[in-house]
Amino acid sequence: MELFYAIPVLGILALVFMAIQSAWVSKQEVGNEKMARIAKHIADGAMAFLRAEYKVLAIFVVVVAVLLAVSGANTEGSNILVALSFIVGAICSALAGFIGMKVATKANVRTTNAARTGLSHALKVAFRGGAVMGLGVVGLGLLGLGVLLLIYTSSIVSFSDDWGTILTVLTGFSFGASSIALFARVGGGIYTKAADVGADLVGKVEAGIPEDHPLNPATIADNVGDNVGDVAGMGADLFESYVGSIIGTMVLGLALMQADTSAFGAEDMSPIILPLLLAGAGILTSILGTFMVNVKEGGNPQKALNIGEFGSTGVLIVLSYFIITVVLPESWEFGGETYTSTGVFIATIIGSIAGVLIGLITEYYTGFGTKPVKKIVDQSVTGAATNIIAGLGVGMQSTAIPIIIIAAAIVGAHEFAGLYGIAIAAVGMLANTGIQLAVDAYGPISDNAGGIAEMAELPKEVRGRTDKLDAVGNTTAAIGKGFAIGSAALTALALFAAFMTTAGIDTIDVANPVVMAGLFLGGMLPFLFSSMAMDSVGKAAMDMIEEVRRQFKEIPELKAALEVMKRNGEKDYKEWSKKDQATFDAADGTPEYDKCVDISTKASIREMVLPGILAISVPTLIGFAGGPEMLGGLLAGVTVSGVLMAIFQSNSGGAWDNAKKMFEDGVEIKGTMTYKGSEAHKAAVVGDTVGDPFKDTSGPSLNILVKLTSIVALVLAPFIAIDNADVNIENDETSSIEIQYEAPADKNLSSGDVINY
Amino acid sequence: MELFYAIPVLGILALVFMAIQSAWVSKQEVGNEKMARIAKHIADGAMAFLRAEYKVLAIFVVVVAVLLAVSGANTEGSNILVALSFIVGAICSALAGFIGMKVATKANVRTTNAARTGLSHALKVAFRGGAVMGLGVVGLGLLGLGVLLLIYTSSIVSFSDDWGTILTVLTGFSFGASSIALFARVGGGIYTKAADVGADLVGKVEAGIPEDHPLNPATIADNVGDNVGDVAGMGADLFESYVGSIIGTMVLGLALMQADTSAFGAEDMSPIILPLLLAGAGILTSILGTFMVNVKEGGNPQKALNIGEFGSTGVLIVLSYFIITVVLPESWEFGGETYTSTGVFIATIIGSIAGVLIGLITEYYTGFGTKPVKKIVDQSVTGAATNIIAGLGVGMQSTAIPIIIIAAAIVGAHEFAGLYGIAIAAVGMLANTGIQLAVDAYGPISDNAGGIAEMAELPKEVRGRTDKLDAVGNTTAAIGKGFAIGSAALTALALFAAFMTTAGIDTIDVANPVVMAGLFLGGMLPFLFSSMAMDSVGKAAMDMIEEVRRQFKEIPELKAALEVMKRNGEKDYKEWSKKDQATFDAADGTPEYDKCVDISTKASIREMVLPGILAISVPTLIGFAGGPEMLGGLLAGVTVSGVLMAIFQSNSGGAWDNAKKMFEDGVEIKGTMTYKGSEAHKAAVVGDTVGDPFKDTSGPSLNILVKLTSIVALVLAPFIAIDNADVNIENDETSSIEIQYEAPADKNLSSGDVINY
Repeated sequence: MELFYAIPVLGILALVFMAIQSAWVSKQEVGNEKMARIAKHIADGAMAFLRAEYKVLAIFVVVVAVLLAVSGANTEGSNILVALSFIVGAICSALAGFIGMKVATKANVRTTNAARTGLSHALKVAFRGGAVMGLGVVGLGLLGLGVLLLIYTSSIVSFSDDWGTILTVLTGFSFGASSIALFARVGGGIYTKAADVGADLVGKVEAGIPEDHPLNPATIADNVGDNVGDVAGMGADLFESYVGSIIGTMVLGLALMQADTSAFGAEDMSPIILPLLLAGAGILTSILGTFMVNVKEGGNPQKALNIGEFGSTGVLIVLSYFIITVVLPESWEFGGETYTSTGVFIATIIGSIAGVLIGLITEYYTGFGTKPVKKIVDQSVTGAATNIIAGLGVGMQSTAIPIIIIAAAIVGAHEFAGLYGIAIAAVGMLANTGIQLAVDAYGPISDNAGGIAEMAELPKEVRGRTDKLDAVGNTTAAIGKGFAIGSAALTALALFAAFMTTAGIDTIDVANPVVMAGLFLGGMLPFLFSSMAMDSVGKAAMDMIEEVRRQFKEIPELKAALEVMKRNGEKDYKEWSKKDQATFDAADGTPEYDKCVDISTKASIREMVLPGILAISVPTLIGFAGGPEMLGGLLAGVTVSGVLMAIFQSNSGGAWDNAKKMFEDGVEIKGTMTYKGSEAHKAAVVGDTVGDPFKDTSGPSLNILVKLTSIVALVLAPFIAIDNADVNIENDETSSIEIQYEAPADKNLSSGDVINY
Repeated sequence: MELFYAIPVLGILALVFMAIQSAWVSKQEVGNEKMARIAKHIADGAMAFLRAEYKVLAIFVVVVAVLLAVSGANTEGSNILVALSFIVGAICSALAGFIGMKVATKANVRTTNAARTGLSHALKVAFRGGAVMGLGVVGLGLLGLGVLLLIYTSSIVSFSDDWGTILTVLTGFSFGASSIALFARVGGGIYTKAADVGADLVGKVEAGIPEDHPLNPATIADNVGDNVGDVAGMGADLFESYVGSIIGTMVLGLALMQADTSAFGAEDMSPIILPLLLAGAGILTSILGTFMVNVKEGGNPQKALNIGEFGSTGVLIVLSYFIITVVLPESWEFGGETYTSTGVFIATIIGSIAGVLIGLITEYYTGFGTKPVKKIVDQSVTGAATNIIAGLGVGMQSTAIPIIIIAAAIVGAHEFAGLYGIAIAAVGMLANTGIQLAVDAYGPISDNAGGIAEMAELPKEVRGRTDKLDAVGNTTAAIGKGFAIGSAALTALALFAAFMTTAGIDTIDVANPVVMAGLFLGGMLPFLFSSMAMDSVGKAAMDMIEEVRRQFKEIPELKAALEVMKRNGEKDYKEWSKKDQATFDAADGTPEYDKCVDISTKASIREMVLPGILAISVPTLIGFAGGPEMLGGLLAGVTVSGVLMAIFQSNSGGAWDNAKKMFEDGVEIKGTMTYKGSEAHKAAVVGDTVGDPFKDTSGPSLNILVKLTSIVALVLAPFIAIDNADVNIENDETSSIEIQYEAPADKNLSSGDVINY
């Protein structure tokens, strides 16, 4: 039991290192006045979004917490504590997002500034900025869980020895994290794409000014969007997976203990505590990993990140082996099978290998210059339609191998360690979230750094360096997305198993029509959810387009500057007439960035409500009206269809994006070099625009939908549980229930036989 | 037992009426020499495709039949008879397709000719042409099944009293039908879109000649494609559903009989024969329905078709009630529940209502001028990307209500009549296939009629009349597509239940990791399958494009005529110079249509092989390597994901198509009238092109995939069945199997209790 105290300590350790990294980032130089001004706009915009979002979330959290607190009472006071866990989970997730964004919006401009002198230092700033997000997520996750666990197992609460109730109460934490994740991903996804589409369609297409140009009123919102979607959104997503997989494993750990009381003594909490210990070890290796990321001037940033990521994963695997074999008993019985601690170790390895493999497949299907992406490029010659068809085809095809990997991981992990194995595989995949997320968040920071270089009109070599960092970021982003989907799948399965255990159902039989109906409805939800998300982007982008158009029309300085720019065409600023230069300079700072930020914020907050309600209300409704088995069918349907749609949409979008980028330096199509501005490139731009909401809004939102449905089910489980004691069979009735019986030597029984008892 | 003789008789009745309709169509006037020549090209092309397809299929059928015949032997000679059923099923399906296409390619030109004088007679010709396909499918379906059944129940075979074996042997018929359907749908889908895209991209876009212009070498292939895809493809699809649902119900009917031998006497085959009788009744009402379709000059063709369809459905429902209550016992026991004949009747009603509702929803999401389609139109103003996003969104959203309907139908039908109820609901939906398919096939015939009017350069009012017929055809096509998907879903479920019964598995538990893995893999198949189909269209279209380009370059008369056309622009032919007219006339008939037909034929045959192998080999592999439960998971996954993807793709495609069409007469967008040729219209054309393979190739192919996987499983079931007698529990072991037991008054047992036996 003393081990329990180690959990929050490790969480605090992560937070201390986070604070050190954060202080280091803050200490770096900001650069010139213009850079500082732009950076402030972005930082203010990001905070404005978070403030608005958290205001809505606060109401949501309070309402749900009250509902949780008042709805029935299984064990004295437990409902209130579910509500408490829920609130703490929500606060931890929100806080992690807040800190991550705060530092990311500091690191971006400091990366730009570092890039003025060289690549090596710039990488360091960007990566450390990302590490704050990574360490914040794992630190707050483990601290929150650890502290709640200490409270619930202490004599402060009445059920401190009833692990069933303790874990039920603890699931609220995961639910809280999921709720924030839902809104961060959906709202963030809508925000970033509304700003992006608005900035592009009016700025680039209508007014003809370059991307990230300071005269575009939506450009700040666009850069804010990168932080909102890719830093805070991704962070909340992985926070949810992280705590979800841990809690799911703990619930299954309890089932393990109860099934074999001889292997697990009364004091042996090892299967429950194991996921926490693995996560704690992951914190140590993540911190270690941050020290391993270094690049010499002229070196390869990708290699530096890889060393950090794979190096720390290697150490984690070794650590895991010792932890698992020391903590767990050598072997135990469960459901008639014997499992070993080595088996559990193998399951964690299966999980972490599956995570890496899915990431690599994602890179293959979406990476710059890969065969599938080149196919989309080739199909762009005959127009936008064939580009789109090719992209949709690539996305659909890309589901095959990841699904085979997931299926193999499920079967493999179960083979070695039963249901517990599937859950611990998810933990194995996610234990190193700290460094994984650091690498993920590095991407948008580099992207922002490039944007700031452009807006501040810094020399070309600066932008060249940030582009190099950004290119690496695109690869890590692709891998990170695959990892996020894979981890969502395994986390959902862990929660699914935990739900079944808690709800007291042994089978979810698709031959049962109610389950089949649930499966259909669950399978449909990701389609409906995606359509809502895409609709929302469309609406929000329209608002943005109108605002940008209004500013271009109504702000005289801006209007004049745009005309001057158009008139001078491609000519260098220095060759402009003095008068034109003056008109242009006068427009500096006149676009009302905050209005665009406001539009994007309001639209995303407004549009995230309906999908949010859908995601929470449908499983609740099905659970109460259709029963736990129908809910089980729903979960299975949501998980399978959600993972498929997430892979399909993310990868189509990623592939279109890079197909478009391949034109930028020129690409050979059937022997002809084709460049930016060609008809084929225009077709590729259409594909990229279609892919934007796919890969940044609806696709990633499905990760959350998949996990959230499971966690809602797990929270509901005690309320809708089938009380096995009620399945009584009355006098002389013949009924069919599953019971265990001991057969004597001379009798053979077959399924369906009628016996007298 | 005498009722068995009625089945083939009713089948023959349908074929007699089919022959009458066919003779009537053939008797109609063909029109002028040019019309006859064009029609002959189309008819020859269609037959060329069928010949090539059937040649490949013959090899496939022989190989599979041999495999079926030699693989193990459960009951003496039964494997050989499975192979026989398979061959007969394949031949019946192929024959129905052949006859349907033959008459459809006669009816098209005769419809054009009838349209020269009026609408009423033209409708009659088109509809009767379609009725041949409809009656052919049901007639051959019922005749084939009926004759095989008479043979298998006669003393010619050794197991004539063993219904288990008889039905196993009979499933081969459904498998044969499915195999043909697979290739007809996939091959036909690839054919029609390769021709369409080729004709459009080179003809319309590059050479600038109108659609269906006789100088376009691909135009005949395009018109052939309509027949190949929408007549033969749709016919094979519904043929498969028709026989699949009947056989699935028969298998479950046997389980019913065996479960309650007191309600069903030894001679009472009623639950087995009922689906055949309902299908027979459907033949009578379909024939009746064909007489109800009449339109007065100036009347509404839509109304005429509706009267035929809904009128005959009404009569069928009344007939069904009498058949069901007379044939079935009043009540019986199954799985501890009591079911009644009235319950079975309600289940059939649920099926037919579900079919109609799904059709109507499809019409709402894809119809001309409906709200969702107008939304796509509105989003076209900002370009192709927003048009595509809107179309994808509409397609995804459109899955929601049909899935809710399917889920409700499953639960409802099961509530009233158990698993048998779900199967009989599928039969209820499909019994009227004769008239449903007649209405479906009417569409492409009208479409072709319009194409012939254009190619033969008939007066504008003729094209006006065929357009009117065609517009109605688009609505019926949308409804028919929804119906095809809905029926595929219910048929797959019926076959799924039959598979479980035959394989001897009581539960398919998604908590079992092997089942969950199967679910994931099954869910992925429709994505992979769709990507293959879209890829194939791309490749085949490329071949076509190159051929058309070659002809435009190499045939001197054609080249000269194209230049003349370009030079004269929009000017009327009569105003051309004499020389230009002469050049143009000289080109008449010079395009080598047959080469294009050949390209499309070869490409589609080549490209259908891989998806075909995938669809058959994956369930086989999973069944043998993973066992029946994993296969069960796979089936559930394929069904849910396949139905969702089919609805999504079909409806996106349909909505894009009509969004484009809405521009043709001008449409109001935000207060501005927008017409053909505008930028928004061009964006809509891109959407339509993306939608083409969606709605005509990959989408409809999934219907087949869903059913085929189930039928393959059902055919395999006896080989991979879990022999329940083997589930023996040895001395003193505690094991958990499901058994029935009778509890005495004083004992209460709960699930999981250990008892001594």
